[in-house]
Order: sequence, then structure tokens, then C-alpha cells
Amino acid sequence: MKQIVLLVFVAFAAMGCTQQKSPEVPEVDEKAITGTIIALEKEALGRWYSGDPDGFLELSAEDVTYMDPALNNTIVGLDNLKKYYEPIRGMVQSNHFELENTQVITNGNLAVLNYNLRNYAIDSQSQWNCTEVYRLEADGKWKIVHTHWTHYTPKQ
Amino acid sequence: MKQIVLLVFVAFAAMGCTQQKSPEVPEVDEKAITGTIIALEKEALGRWYSGDPDGFLELSAEDVTYMDPALNNTIVGLDNLKKYYEPIRGMVQSNHFELENTQVITNGNLAVLNYNLRNYAIDSQSQWNCTEVYRLEADGKWKIVHTHWTHYTPKQ
Repeated sequence: MKQIVLLVFVAFAAMGCTQQKSPEVPEVDEKAITGTIIALEKEALGRWYSGDPDGFLELSAEDVTYMDPALNNTIVGLDNLKKYYEPIRGMVQSNHFELENTQVITNGNLAVLNYNLRNYAIDSQSQWNCTEVYRLEADGKWKIVHTHWTHYTPKQ
Repeated sequence: MKQIVLLVFVAFAAMGCTQQKSPEVPEVDEKAITGTIIALEKEALGRWYSGDPDGFLELSAEDVTYMDPALNNTIVGLDNLKKYYEPIRGMVQSNHFELENTQVITNGNLAVLNYNLRNYAIDSQSQWNCTEVYRLEADGKWKIVHTHWTHYTPKQ
């Protein structure tokens, strides 16, 4: 009798543990994340080239850090980025831009997007390189935590 | 008797499950990772400013992507980065450089370093912004998978 009780106990204990085991870490769906990140970036760029910096500002986290060639000190924090963008509100316009060589490096909750930007506006053609670091927040939304822009300057 | 057996079973089953529960995901030691990444970067920079690009090349992964202001197309892959660096081997020299505003964003196996670089060489003072994306490889070593350099160009 004792042996039967013991066997039943072991069997039930094993079953219980199997059922309550923590779930496997889900595989990272790089393709889906890549699509999501590029769509977010394109939407923000579309607003940017309509003179509206709020697309990028709404997409940026409170603790965002920001670099571009006109800065030799990183901008730290969303409030400071808002102040930096405010004077150019309404000034940046383009009706034709393209992203080339897009790449997203991700491990599931950080995603690093980088691309070459071609701006084909009639009076302000320019080329830029961009790196954006997105972080998946607790509410399931991706936010930019680091931005780095380079203006392409051909070697003389 | 049955009740006692049942109680003992429930108690043991609960104990067994608690002990066999999958381990918690280890907390990310951001401080340790930050220290490691900055040390790797400084070592590579030290070699860079001695004319030796191999520090960065040895630290870069086969699938690295690379951007700087002289490029309007991303360099993809270590072999292409080697070709790009080769002509400047021995040419970059500085006996005094500093990293300022260093930041490492990490969630465990990706780490994004960014900083402002001050090069105080007597005949070639310059300032740069840098973003480096490091990935923790299966062998436990960190490798650069994305590099982005900006040369600071004050607004006219």
C-alpha cells in the first residue's frame, strides 16, 4: 500500500510540475519586428518631411539620446529633444524620399534600425545615414531610445 | 488515513513544484556590461589612434554594418570593412583622446554604446559622435555588429 501511495504521489507531482513549468522563451520573429520598426520609422519620416517633428517626438522615449552632425554633445531626454526640434517646425519639406539598405538587428525587445536616406526634394536634395535604437516598452509599443543622424559629406 | 495521505501528497507536490520551477531569467547586470563594452571600445580606439585599425576589425562580427559621413551606402560585412580601412593603416595618430557622455543601452545580449569623442592631437583636433552596437556571441565574447560615426560639423 505504501508503495502504491508513493508511486501515485510521484506520478502526480511530476504531472503537476510539468504543467506549471514556465513557458519556453518565444522565438524572436525578426521579420515581424523588422516590418513593424520600418513602418514606424517611415510614418515618422513622412510627418518630418511635412514639417512636423511630432512623429519622431511621439515615437521617442523619455530617456532618448540623440546625435547629429551639428552637435558635439549628445542631447539627453525627450524634453531637450523637443526644444531642439521646435525651431525647425514647419521648415523641413520634401515630397520624395526613400530609405535604402535598411537593416534591423533585434533580439526581441531591442531593435536597431539603420538605413541610408535619400531626400529628392527639388530644392534640397540630400543624403543621410541613420541609426535608430527602438526598445519594446511594457505596454507593447516600440519607442526610440537612441537616434544618430549623419549628413553624407563626400570626401574632397 | 485517506485525508492524511492526501494532505501529505498536496504538500509534497507543492514543494516539488517550487523546487523544480524553471530558474528566473537572470537580471541584466547593466553596470558590468557597460564596463566591459567601454573597455573594449577604448582598447580598440587606442589602437586606432596608433594607426592600427585591427583593434576594431578584430572586434567586429562577420556581418557588421558600418556608416560614416564619407559614405552614402552602408558597408556590409567584415571583408568590405577591412578593404575600407586598409588605405588608412598607419595614418591615424593621436596621443590624446577622450570619450564623453558615454551611454550603454542593454538588455543582456545586445548593447548599444554611444559617446562623443574628443581628439586632441596637436595637428588634427576633431570631434566625433559614435554609436556602436555590440552583440554577445555564443562564445561569450562581445562583437560589434553595427558602427555609426559622425564628424562634428558646426552649423554655419
